[in-house]
Amino acid sequence: MNRSQLTGQIKAKQSYLCVGLDTDVTKIPAHLQSQPQAVLQFNKAIIDATKNYCVAYKINTAFYEVYGLKGWEILEETLAYIPSTHFTIADAKRGDIGNTSAQYARTFFETYSFDAVTVAPYMGEDSIRPFLEYTDKFTIVLGLTSNKGAGDFEYLKTNTGNYFYEEVISKISTWGTQDNLMFVVGATQAKELENIRKIIPSNFLLIPGVGAQGGSLEDVSKYGMNKDCGLLVNVGRSILYASTQEDFAETAATVSKEYQQQMTGCLKTYLPV
Amino acid sequence: MNRSQLTGQIKAKQSYLCVGLDTDVTKIPAHLQSQPQAVLQFNKAIIDATKNYCVAYKINTAFYEVYGLKGWEILEETLAYIPSTHFTIADAKRGDIGNTSAQYARTFFETYSFDAVTVAPYMGEDSIRPFLEYTDKFTIVLGLTSNKGAGDFEYLKTNTGNYFYEEVISKISTWGTQDNLMFVVGATQAKELENIRKIIPSNFLLIPGVGAQGGSLEDVSKYGMNKDCGLLVNVGRSILYASTQEDFAETAATVSKEYQQQMTGCLKTYLPV
Repeated sequence: MNRSQLTGQIKAKQSYLCVGLDTDVTKIPAHLQSQPQAVLQFNKAIIDATKNYCVAYKINTAFYEVYGLKGWEILEETLAYIPSTHFTIADAKRGDIGNTSAQYARTFFETYSFDAVTVAPYMGEDSIRPFLEYTDKFTIVLGLTSNKGAGDFEYLKTNTGNYFYEEVISKISTWGTQDNLMFVVGATQAKELENIRKIIPSNFLLIPGVGAQGGSLEDVSKYGMNKDCGLLVNVGRSILYASTQEDFAETAATVSKEYQQQMTGCLKTYLPV
Repeated sequence: MNRSQLTGQIKAKQSYLCVGLDTDVTKIPAHLQSQPQAVLQFNKAIIDATKNYCVAYKINTAFYEVYGLKGWEILEETLAYIPSTHFTIADAKRGDIGNTSAQYARTFFETYSFDAVTVAPYMGEDSIRPFLEYTDKFTIVLGLTSNKGAGDFEYLKTNTGNYFYEEVISKISTWGTQDNLMFVVGATQAKELENIRKIIPSNFLLIPGVGAQGGSLEDVSKYGMNKDCGLLVNVGRSILYASTQEDFAETAATVSKEYQQQMTGCLKTYLPV
């Protein structure tokens, strides 16, 4: 799925919700836990329940890798179950020297046909280029993350007076285009979004941290939206585990519908004309 | 394997060689390529040929993930084939928010029983702590890498006049001990090792970049060795693909023996008394 298809979906659904499939078998309803392929059954039910309200799904690879072969099998079947109308993100945070990054890019864009993969920036240009060479896919680089540890390095000041994360976003933005490059910016850092939009007015931003991590959808939309919306707001735990009873899917539908409705409101209020 | 067992192996073998199993099916000898499980057969032959000359094996996960389920199966069987006398490293460069990093730590330390895993530092403390909680395992954090892209961010100057990588190593060194924390420092940056040893005199360093990437074993040993040796020098391509003929295993043995002999010499010359 390319950028104009993604913006088309956002417009049609009046939603920029991405549902995060960080499925933890210990947190899914008890009646499912004992069944074979419990995680896959859970994911399918969540996808069925939320697909009308979201435009993207983000699969966090860690929650699948931890189960070894079985986990990768579930990841693959989950990915296959996502409708082709939805943008798919492998949240894998990979990155290595050039020849190794090329293998990771091939993994997520060819072995598995994700539309996008998240990438860590520390090792610089040759660690990111192999992903960007897939010009019909999206590389989503960590900019400013939603966790407490963002303060340790991302907020270090450089000798030019900028934050380190600003140097990262600024430099990397010249390596790709709005058609193959996005950045992760945590919702917990909403006040920085105004500043980030000065550096990258047109790239899409993947925004984790709304919901369980405490970020505000309103603030993110106010400071981060551009004329194509330019936002994919990821919500994981608040939707997946909204109910731990047999009604988990209906409750997930209700909660994701609420997010979609809030987003419709935000698009009316904040989309620049 | 803990630190004293590792240093014991280094002493006994007079070697600090780590063989990097970055096995690329397109580069292994033609007579193997057509056979089922060619990569596994190749890895087993390389392990048999090199085990007397090295103390560690590093499995680069990218080269296995790219083959999907089959790749993870080969990774698992390769790991199982490594003798218990050898230190095992998952070169996976993972790192995410706390609850996700906990899944990655469980993946490499429990689902697969690696002795160590490489971790990316960008997201700060809560992305690294879950790995360090395994006090009988090693977390190997990227410090200064061997690739050209190291210049992009690792060598940015902060407002305190330090390089960014120095801030990373300095801060993270307080989160772990010499018994559960190592750093990656590229051999191509050997001149920086003297400086790095002032920040972290006692942690082990994993040194990639000798061989195909052009780093010097002599320089690395001169500037990086501490009284326990404190170095694991990784060599991948120069050993794996030393011959692309049927004699690949014998040639790998010859080349790794040459490295081991050079290391014996370096230990005599540079080990502080």
